[in-house]
Amino acid sequence: MSAEAFRYESVRKNVLEMIESGTLKPGDKAPSLRRLAARMRVSLSTVALAYGQLESEGVMEARPKSGFFVCARRNPLPPPGIKDCPGEIPETLNRSAIIRTVLASMARRDMLPLGVARTDENLLPLAQLSRIMGQVLRDEGDRVGFYGPVEGFEPLRRQIALRVMEAGTDCTASDTLVTSGAMEALHIALRCVTRAGDTVVIASPTYYCFLQLLENLGLRVIEIPSRPGEGVRPSELAQVVERFRVEACVLTPNFNNPDGALTPDEAKAEIVSILARRGIPLIEDDVYGDIHYGPVRPRCCKAFDENGLVLTCSSFSKTLAPGYRVGWLLPGRFMNTALELKATMSVATATPTQMAVAQYLGSGAYHRHLKRLRPAVKSLMENMHALVGRYFPPGTRASRPEGGSVMWVQLPGGADGAQFMHRALEHGVSVAPGAIFSSQGCFKSFVRLSCCVLPGPELTGAVKTLGAIAEDLLVKGHDDRIPDPWAGDPIAMPECCPKDS
Amino acid sequence: MSAEAFRYESVRKNVLEMIESGTLKPGDKAPSLRRLAARMRVSLSTVALAYGQLESEGVMEARPKSGFFVCARRNPLPPPGIKDCPGEIPETLNRSAIIRTVLASMARRDMLPLGVARTDENLLPLAQLSRIMGQVLRDEGDRVGFYGPVEGFEPLRRQIALRVMEAGTDCTASDTLVTSGAMEALHIALRCVTRAGDTVVIASPTYYCFLQLLENLGLRVIEIPSRPGEGVRPSELAQVVERFRVEACVLTPNFNNPDGALTPDEAKAEIVSILARRGIPLIEDDVYGDIHYGPVRPRCCKAFDENGLVLTCSSFSKTLAPGYRVGWLLPGRFMNTALELKATMSVATATPTQMAVAQYLGSGAYHRHLKRLRPAVKSLMENMHALVGRYFPPGTRASRPEGGSVMWVQLPGGADGAQFMHRALEHGVSVAPGAIFSSQGCFKSFVRLSCCVLPGPELTGAVKTLGAIAEDLLVKGHDDRIPDPWAGDPIAMPECCPKDS
Repeated sequence: MSAEAFRYESVRKNVLEMIESGTLKPGDKAPSLRRLAARMRVSLSTVALAYGQLESEGVMEARPKSGFFVCARRNPLPPPGIKDCPGEIPETLNRSAIIRTVLASMARRDMLPLGVARTDENLLPLAQLSRIMGQVLRDEGDRVGFYGPVEGFEPLRRQIALRVMEAGTDCTASDTLVTSGAMEALHIALRCVTRAGDTVVIASPTYYCFLQLLENLGLRVIEIPSRPGEGVRPSELAQVVERFRVEACVLTPNFNNPDGALTPDEAKAEIVSILARRGIPLIEDDVYGDIHYGPVRPRCCKAFDENGLVLTCSSFSKTLAPGYRVGWLLPGRFMNTALELKATMSVATATPTQMAVAQYLGSGAYHRHLKRLRPAVKSLMENMHALVGRYFPPGTRASRPEGGSVMWVQLPGGADGAQFMHRALEHGVSVAPGAIFSSQGCFKSFVRLSCCVLPGPELTGAVKTLGAIAEDLLVKGHDDRIPDPWAGDPIAMPECCPKDS
Repeated sequence: MSAEAFRYESVRKNVLEMIESGTLKPGDKAPSLRRLAARMRVSLSTVALAYGQLESEGVMEARPKSGFFVCARRNPLPPPGIKDCPGEIPETLNRSAIIRTVLASMARRDMLPLGVARTDENLLPLAQLSRIMGQVLRDEGDRVGFYGPVEGFEPLRRQIALRVMEAGTDCTASDTLVTSGAMEALHIALRCVTRAGDTVVIASPTYYCFLQLLENLGLRVIEIPSRPGEGVRPSELAQVVERFRVEACVLTPNFNNPDGALTPDEAKAEIVSILARRGIPLIEDDVYGDIHYGPVRPRCCKAFDENGLVLTCSSFSKTLAPGYRVGWLLPGRFMNTALELKATMSVATATPTQMAVAQYLGSGAYHRHLKRLRPAVKSLMENMHALVGRYFPPGTRASRPEGGSVMWVQLPGGADGAQFMHRALEHGVSVAPGAIFSSQGCFKSFVRLSCCVLPGPELTGAVKTLGAIAEDLLVKGHDDRIPDPWAGDPIAMPECCPKDS
């Protein structure tokens, strides 16, 4: 993010805080451009830009010759339900096709990528990383082109261990395995502890690529609810492992993708202990752990692991450079198997990007970068919330995550998420429809929006368009008060699931 | 390779050719340093270096005050047998441990890596690639850090298609999928066409990482012989698919690793047609196809594929930069599945290395590089042959491949390859023992040597040491004339293999 963009954002946030704290009330006149510019020591044009944005978000309105006024507050978006329908598995073919469509938008530059959980590139230190890689190319000579060791470049492993320790987990370089992104880490972790036909517990909703991986590996899944603002309930997990033979559990306790739910640290400790009592490995995905909005970094489940049964997957794709494909796995007691699998999957991770990231981390820049990145992402999330609140039809519900970069939106009136996606694509906007986040055919009227796009007319226009599409898809006479389908039994499983052990 | 090293090699080759053609006979005096230097327009020291090397290889001997003379020719190494023992599957644990040991030597710089099938880095254009990547970092800006598309960077896909077409196969960019090396390509290919429990036909011997991958995927294997100088016999493959239900076939028709066998193009055509008649997919590994010693590039099986049933895996790891991890898959009719698998395995291949390789290929440098690389590798292979012939005990047998960079050596007197490896490691030399190249416990007295190490006192000393170790491991009274274990039935399979379909 440029210095200018940071200043502009801080003006915007300042005004939002005045409104939230009640200093400015609906109908109040906002401080004049001149006054605020002087107070915040920024240029007039910076304040004008921020006010313009707040206007487009529906927070303020400009009255001719009078200045800016705070709008009457719209109802904040209520939180989404935890599930919208109880069954009906969609055809695999369709789900695959939808996922292909979503993935295809990942690298397209002609599309506003609200369907991709990536961090806006303006927030990433890409220029700095490029400079560092250039330096590495000059300093390391031919070594940059050599095979690195299967387990990863030693200086990078040390830096990863330091990061993990900062997040409250005991770790040394030899506990780490460098991977080609967190996806490869998850793949290796799953192959370490399961075989085709095994049953795995996951949260519902879960990132669609995880579901696809589980399916491709021939694993059966039992879904337990991820509740916005609460995450996974240890009691519900305990019920599942009592009733069924489960070989592994896959969770994203820190800001679950797509609903952003955070499972509290106490619950994590309980989950680790419930699973450890039965010797069940827990695979956790922590790619969003570093993007917490609150002051304290939530811990990993690994921090509570006394038996080497927790396998932690993460990467620098959300915080540094997705294109570098540098991730890691802490495989616990499964290191030997993990090394063997890594060798047969990609031999080793690419050397130049490993070296560049190691150098960057070693310089201390990552810590400083995160201190700026977190509030920036938080503010983008607030912005997206405001935009959706303004432009989506009444009845829309949305998550309000405390970290990460995605927002989970429940469309009103039974609007169909997949139709919503196709209509949005026609307007140059990608979104991820809810149905692909469950293997049970749930979340049909949900969509996941990436909040990590810089504010501006393009984003505002896009959300306006999305709102109009949602309006258009409302089903007349649809009853939005669907009874909580988890109410009876919070566990969803395929019929073929092995009961009892 | 430096210009100096190239000159030195050309002198060495020139002398070897004079000997092979009979211009110089055993006992003859070689041209004086001065004369040869003048004739070949190189410096005296270059000729001295080459003569010194030929002396250490046992090709020439220096006689005080008289000059260099051609030595009496040693018996050339006879070709190895195709198998040395008929059974006894070694404990998986041991095989895994051996493979870990071999892989661990991959990135070690304190060890002479004769155990790793990598091309000596002095033969690779690493400095040029570094310069190009530096340029890419400056030219492409932040794009270098973005996610690339799942299928790969478009300009790279186009260049890969052009390469494949040069090798005689119809191909467009949209037929290609960029992968993190050939290993990931093979993994995706196998997952496209098989499920755990399926049976796959492979050649014996086969690269150990392939075997480990097959095992990890829960696949059963039927081994058919790869014969040095002949490769895989279509008739033997035909027998297998007649007798057993086979879901896929995995072959390295161009310079099989480890025995270097080349399956002739006519045989390839026959193999493709035998499999196509039964709808069985063929996965071929072509990483060594570009390193043919003869004038004509052998074709891929893909060239004979009319049904989209051949999946070709390859990479630039043997010819450009192993550390870049850039490979590709031509998945034929399985493109959609392959894309889905790639997304769940590593999302996309690293962007910076893809861009650098695309730029390098687009410049036309690859073609020029191969023209120098091929004869250089060939000459290293001849050198290794001469060294092994000189320093290994009588009775040693070795392959004489027509391409690729590995030599398959059968130790005499029942010497054990795994013991040989451990002893060699103590002397700072890595080798790959034969037993890991078969799932059937064959090739116990074989070792694979990488020939791709520049000649010099270090290499000569290492081979001398290996020869002494081989001598030391001879089992007294061992009968080397083991009957051909393939003679009765050329097909080796696990007992659990599904007979008939």
